[in-house]
Amino acid sequence: MENLKEDSMKMHNFSAGPSIMPAEVFEEASRAILEFNGGGMSLLEISHRSKPFQDVMDEAHALVYELMGLSDDYKVVFLTGGASTQFFQVPMNLLNDGEKALYLETGVWASRAIKEAKFFGNPIIAGSSREANFNFIPKDLNIDPEARYMHITSNNTIYGTQQHWWPDVAMPLVCDMSSDIFSREFPLEKFGLIYAGAQKNMGAAGTTLVVVRKDMLGHVNRTLPTMIDYRTHIDNGSMYNTPPVFPIYVSMLVMRWIKKMGGVKAMEDINEAKAKILYDEIDRNPLFKGTTAVEDRSRMNVCFVMEDPSKEEAFMNLAKANGISGIKGHRSVGGFRASIYNAMPQSSIQVLVDLMRDFEQTNG
Amino acid sequence: MENLKEDSMKMHNFSAGPSIMPAEVFEEASRAILEFNGGGMSLLEISHRSKPFQDVMDEAHALVYELMGLSDDYKVVFLTGGASTQFFQVPMNLLNDGEKALYLETGVWASRAIKEAKFFGNPIIAGSSREANFNFIPKDLNIDPEARYMHITSNNTIYGTQQHWWPDVAMPLVCDMSSDIFSREFPLEKFGLIYAGAQKNMGAAGTTLVVVRKDMLGHVNRTLPTMIDYRTHIDNGSMYNTPPVFPIYVSMLVMRWIKKMGGVKAMEDINEAKAKILYDEIDRNPLFKGTTAVEDRSRMNVCFVMEDPSKEEAFMNLAKANGISGIKGHRSVGGFRASIYNAMPQSSIQVLVDLMRDFEQTNG
Repeated sequence: MENLKEDSMKMHNFSAGPSIMPAEVFEEASRAILEFNGGGMSLLEISHRSKPFQDVMDEAHALVYELMGLSDDYKVVFLTGGASTQFFQVPMNLLNDGEKALYLETGVWASRAIKEAKFFGNPIIAGSSREANFNFIPKDLNIDPEARYMHITSNNTIYGTQQHWWPDVAMPLVCDMSSDIFSREFPLEKFGLIYAGAQKNMGAAGTTLVVVRKDMLGHVNRTLPTMIDYRTHIDNGSMYNTPPVFPIYVSMLVMRWIKKMGGVKAMEDINEAKAKILYDEIDRNPLFKGTTAVEDRSRMNVCFVMEDPSKEEAFMNLAKANGISGIKGHRSVGGFRASIYNAMPQSSIQVLVDLMRDFEQTNG
Repeated sequence: MENLKEDSMKMHNFSAGPSIMPAEVFEEASRAILEFNGGGMSLLEISHRSKPFQDVMDEAHALVYELMGLSDDYKVVFLTGGASTQFFQVPMNLLNDGEKALYLETGVWASRAIKEAKFFGNPIIAGSSREANFNFIPKDLNIDPEARYMHITSNNTIYGTQQHWWPDVAMPLVCDMSSDIFSREFPLEKFGLIYAGAQKNMGAAGTTLVVVRKDMLGHVNRTLPTMIDYRTHIDNGSMYNTPPVFPIYVSMLVMRWIKKMGGVKAMEDINEAKAKILYDEIDRNPLFKGTTAVEDRSRMNVCFVMEDPSKEEAFMNLAKANGISGIKGHRSVGGFRASIYNAMPQSSIQVLVDLMRDFEQTNG
């Protein structure tokens, strides 16, 4: 009986990444592995140079342009290696030895980006919340006007903070949008380069989106390995070598779904409403409290703890017993983290909120 | 009626890569995208740090050790970026500025590896068949004993040549095995580093296998970006950052299948037999001829042309009408290329051979 119940239990996936995607994406991707496009073969076995896959690649590129409202001044490529590879690829392509770039240190990922930038230029920390375990976004910034760009992590998955304003600087912003891409609009004209690992809000692990304004490139005088030079991939439509076929296909399906849902602005409105439901309960329920500065709260990753940490295990068990998956907080913050990306339905958030209320009734 | 016939036609996928995989791999991968491991969630949405995926990663590593018969002196990592990334990552990790490495130039991929090595060391061409459009493997080699390694492409997909002997040199071999990994045994003790993009004989596009002998690393004095240093990935079990979950899972399934088939030696025997069927017909049939030196013929990619090139279109149409896919030769060679990787059944090769005989009857 216990097993039967488990088997039929609806799961609510709050994982930080890889993470929830629309059910229709899983269904279509599953079918494509058996047979793609009516051609009698799997998506995984056809040539990446074949028309059916070229169509996928073309649509994936076109959807990025459409969803972000990009002009031709921007180039779109699908790469591999995750944001961690961009941490060095960005400065290697954009900074000459000794040239300055500003970095906002808002978490461990930002710190890693700074570490890699030191190999190729002179990263300067414009602001840091390290001393507060990154529980807020620094607002009082030191802006060196000589810097070639300013690097920002738009959403900090581990800590649950998010950039809700953009620095008023003359140099272009370079932004790691891995965990909130396509979740909201932003002032494109401020951005020179945007990158995002796909596996949070854009698809399956295995591809990295890079959007770069053309005038950012061609400035450095070092010789770049062919695969590291963004221009290689721009000039070859992300097909200089065999691309990660399946991860790009899944990203294309997710972007199709976003478009069908009304686009990025529609997602933003939905995400605001979804996050409010959970934060309102955290603020109302005397057993729980948020871990970040209120004004910097992320609409993607909601981090919270219990006033009485000894009760956290009991709440975790209650959540698990009700199909809530992936809400254990990162070890550096503790407590809980509910990741509520684009594909997270409001109904699942309501299940979590109802459990918080139930727990208050029985343990308050 | 025409459509009905098309729909039910059995396809024979001779693509050079991405390429054929066992049907059971497609079936299991397709199921995993709907639900993985009985957990009520897709493989694509679970954390890469979760036990179910850690088990996949562990099994993938273990299967490489088992299928290749590796000792603990070797380390196994799954990376991204394809062989094209290894073209620069290998010399960046192994060569100091000015240090020599030997390269055997057996095709365009080998040439690209040489080009990237120039950024980080001093690649010396030990032999080249460029003047003959790479239709043979150079045997008369210039061996500089100071070279730190000798780089070989074990199988040349475009031209249909394959290394059937290994240079008798003191330095370790570094080998691009992208198109014949797990297809045959080789003398492991000669090899210091092996790499392979997965999408030909090992799985789906999106991951790259690297096998490296421990003593090869730690020699260079340049500072390596974290993601470029092989030791980062060795120390973190290929999980320093989010790995390409699905491509690694598919490689694991393919390796399970190879093991079930009897392992690499069994595959080698089958591959020899399969290739013989096709080469025998090419040699017997007066309409066709092979394009490479007989002693260097690849058992993975069989390249051939027609004595009368004007008949090639008609044969291609006959092949297509019978479900043969992907046999158009690379533009730099022309004619036909039948890629007959591990998963290619003998029955499909027989279909192709029968069509060559039929064509001889009607057009000879």
